[in-house]
Amino acid sequence: MKQRIVLALGGNALQKNGEATAEAQKKVAGEVGEAIAELADKYEIIVAHGNGPQIGNILIHEEEAASEQAPAMPLETAVAMSQGQIGYWLTQAINNAFAKKGKTKKIVTVVSQVVVDRNDSAFNNPTKPIGQFYSEKEAKALARKNKWTVKEDAGRGWRRVVASPKPIDIVEKKAIKELAEKDIIVIAAGGGGIPVIRTKVLKRLKGIDAVVDKDYAAEKLAELVKADIFISVTAVPNVYINYGTKDQKPIEKISASEIEKLKKYGYFKAGSMLPKVEAMISFAKKGGIGIITDISHLKEALKDKAGTIVYK
Amino acid sequence: MKQRIVLALGGNALQKNGEATAEAQKKVAGEVGEAIAELADKYEIIVAHGNGPQIGNILIHEEEAASEQAPAMPLETAVAMSQGQIGYWLTQAINNAFAKKGKTKKIVTVVSQVVVDRNDSAFNNPTKPIGQFYSEKEAKALARKNKWTVKEDAGRGWRRVVASPKPIDIVEKKAIKELAEKDIIVIAAGGGGIPVIRTKVLKRLKGIDAVVDKDYAAEKLAELVKADIFISVTAVPNVYINYGTKDQKPIEKISASEIEKLKKYGYFKAGSMLPKVEAMISFAKKGGIGIITDISHLKEALKDKAGTIVYK
Repeated sequence: MKQRIVLALGGNALQKNGEATAEAQKKVAGEVGEAIAELADKYEIIVAHGNGPQIGNILIHEEEAASEQAPAMPLETAVAMSQGQIGYWLTQAINNAFAKKGKTKKIVTVVSQVVVDRNDSAFNNPTKPIGQFYSEKEAKALARKNKWTVKEDAGRGWRRVVASPKPIDIVEKKAIKELAEKDIIVIAAGGGGIPVIRTKVLKRLKGIDAVVDKDYAAEKLAELVKADIFISVTAVPNVYINYGTKDQKPIEKISASEIEKLKKYGYFKAGSMLPKVEAMISFAKKGGIGIITDISHLKEALKDKAGTIVYK
Repeated sequence: MKQRIVLALGGNALQKNGEATAEAQKKVAGEVGEAIAELADKYEIIVAHGNGPQIGNILIHEEEAASEQAPAMPLETAVAMSQGQIGYWLTQAINNAFAKKGKTKKIVTVVSQVVVDRNDSAFNNPTKPIGQFYSEKEAKALARKNKWTVKEDAGRGWRRVVASPKPIDIVEKKAIKELAEKDIIVIAAGGGGIPVIRTKVLKRLKGIDAVVDKDYAAEKLAELVKADIFISVTAVPNVYINYGTKDQKPIEKISASEIEKLKKYGYFKAGSMLPKVEAMISFAKKGGIGIITDISHLKEALKDKAGTIVYK
């Protein structure tokens, strides 16, 4: 029986040097597709991905060119749009990587809703900046009009900020698992998933403007579909101690409790390695294998020969 | 065993009175969701849908607010974005219709690529207007810059026109069929599908800017997944002879060859009933049952008591 992998692609994984045209991103997707096709003989594969730069641009377009006839889509719907966009590029790239080998393979992008808790404390303190920069005056006017929270962003101007609550469930989990069991490659939980809450009485789903961290959402997915291995693909081959200094040292194999200690010492930065390391700790503590590496070390890492590997 | 239905929702199905906000469209999706949930005990259901008004707005936003940092997405990628958007609204609406009954149901939106022939004669004569209106000067400059074809649109200004080739295959057909066999409700081939061609030698997929008619794509899907019944849900309960005149007469049950004769007499308008009728003729000739009706007559039509029903 094949082992099941959930592979989380970094939010910037499809944009090299900030090249944001569809053409440039498809080209990068091509490399990702080939790496994934390499693994498909041995593993069932579910791909989760970020959407940071893509949804940034969607929101800029939606908001700048909004009119009464063509109103801007809200953030939660924009996440769905980015899932279609990136899912399409990845699906096609994987299709083409198989075609190159003279093979065909079933690949499905599943538009995915991720359930968050309306009482998550993150909603009391929105911190995640999204969309374009505004002047203070514009930002405050938009905040009044759209019930946004806006904040000054590191001297670069004002931006909308939204909550980044923890994922508690993925609506499509069972269907995603069934697809994986049929050895269909699945792309799911894109951009951390479309954030939804469940109403108390009727258990209705309702979209909510928030951003779920892509690594946490991918870890939740890995848990729910009972993956054996959870991999976070990032820009560097390993997690490091003293990253970016002359004492920089890669972490190779490490237990969840050991890397948790390093985390407590403050070795990993928020908005960078921290969420990835936290996701790996969660996953490894439940008995899975967590890996953090870059796309070119993926195959070696799965042979235990590269990457940072976190075990129970 | 359940019968399998492919249900094609009209392009304007989610916009009542042109109300284009996400909120208004989700509300309409709610009604569609309830109608679909009503059928799920007796049928396996695959939903295809149009995207006319939605992709119009996406393109307006993408093009009006494009910049070097945030370039506009091409039409084929914009179709993928609209599949995410509308697929999300429909998935959630169907989820909620089941929640109202105290039930849960698996629903999956599959991002879908539809294969067209690069040699389709439609590419020699692009006719489908898309996106915003321009002045003649702007339109011609954009045509030179982006290799667009532009045309004057009925005195309203200049617009880009693209080809509307026939669908010849759907890349995700097998996965869609497997999902339906597991009684998972599938949303697929949205907006006629993301148009792709297959390169000759390597059989690589490549997106191409075109618009595939939603009814033809849905019919192709119905064929490929071996549906028993293909339903086109539109704004009126029946197909009519002499529509809009005092001699207007609904068509009830009719054979494919009979309605084909009526078609030859010119009773059905291009861009309106014609593609739906043609799709039904194709489907019924292969032995399936084709139905054209509106959402409120759906249940009755499936009992043979309403709608236009086309048989072999």
